[in-house]
Amino acid sequence: MRMRKKTWAEPFLNENNHFVIQEPQNNQGQWKKILNCEKLHVEIGCGKGDYFIQMSSMDSTVGWIGIEKDRNVAAVAAKKAIDLGNSNMLMIALDAENIDSWFAPNEIDVIHLNFSDPWPKAGYRKRRLSHGKFLEKYRNLLTSEGQIIMKTDNQGLFEFSLAEFSQNGWILEEVSVDFRRVDHPEDAISEYEAKFMALGQPIYRAVFALKV
Amino acid sequence: MRMRKKTWAEPFLNENNHFVIQEPQNNQGQWKKILNCEKLHVEIGCGKGDYFIQMSSMDSTVGWIGIEKDRNVAAVAAKKAIDLGNSNMLMIALDAENIDSWFAPNEIDVIHLNFSDPWPKAGYRKRRLSHGKFLEKYRNLLTSEGQIIMKTDNQGLFEFSLAEFSQNGWILEEVSVDFRRVDHPEDAISEYEAKFMALGQPIYRAVFALKV
Repeated sequence: MRMRKKTWAEPFLNENNHFVIQEPQNNQGQWKKILNCEKLHVEIGCGKGDYFIQMSSMDSTVGWIGIEKDRNVAAVAAKKAIDLGNSNMLMIALDAENIDSWFAPNEIDVIHLNFSDPWPKAGYRKRRLSHGKFLEKYRNLLTSEGQIIMKTDNQGLFEFSLAEFSQNGWILEEVSVDFRRVDHPEDAISEYEAKFMALGQPIYRAVFALKV
Repeated sequence: MRMRKKTWAEPFLNENNHFVIQEPQNNQGQWKKILNCEKLHVEIGCGKGDYFIQMSSMDSTVGWIGIEKDRNVAAVAAKKAIDLGNSNMLMIALDAENIDSWFAPNEIDVIHLNFSDPWPKAGYRKRRLSHGKFLEKYRNLLTSEGQIIMKTDNQGLFEFSLAEFSQNGWILEEVSVDFRRVDHPEDAISEYEAKFMALGQPIYRAVFALKV
């Protein structure tokens, strides 16, 4: 998602460092306590925050952290989230490359990858958030019952990801090649997703776990 | 695939028992020798035979066995195959439930499941050719480098199968949610598949293996 540079973004993020955590490594192992939640869900690449912000309103026992490295985009999400004011969410506006220094082993219950950048060119596969390089990091951070839930409109990214997870030892718990062909009121629809749905394009979804 | 009863089918199958093998258990462990081939491919549920008959013309070092339990349908396939006359194919017109008595361990290189019956009703999942019950049989019959290649137009069957294979310890080597969006001249298109393609429906395909 590209966005024109917003001059207010950087000052806003810095002013709101109670919500957009600047040094997440200081909270390692403490996130559930900080968010006062039983389960911790992390959305990597949360964009303008539509998904995790809506989800945070559904169940107050679940804590949400939205990660977005594009600080212009993260500022839009942060503004929206702060306006809504749910206490069970926070954000990190940094590159998820370093996610393994922000969370402790077994700290995260669910990682969400929604409409991640597909990096279609052959040389850039390592940048995909479902590349084996990232999967190794996620494995350490998830609880033993943990899950990764992925949604995308991109066929190439979905196909790559299904194979990549499998070849790295993950189990496919659930999969859908057209997730919205039935209603899923339990799963928020972002503005971004709604655009694809309006075009009649299938939404692909998969749930991966570390064991059967 | 349902077909009106053909009075000629049963006599034809019996007369052509050099091609439609009546007691396949007698050939257990001998199929590659009998077919004079290096690799053995088996299509379970070959219908009217369009796929394996075309494939048998592509590479004479690969032997093909088409299995079809509906003997009316199998007779149509057998007639077509016998007319073509390639020496690297045979058929079995029996229920694949007993496949483990027909082949020896490590005898099959590739099993093909093309447009298998989806058995959509909840009570009938065990009949799906990708049910765990069948996967255990296939595991024993395949070589250590063996593969199962599945194609279908049916979303529900595809989704079930991806999860079922994964949860039974298989690795996803390749997957496509729209296999025909690029040309695959190496893979024959049956009349049945062509119908779905003509309707613009995606063909789903997955390749499973026992190890990475």
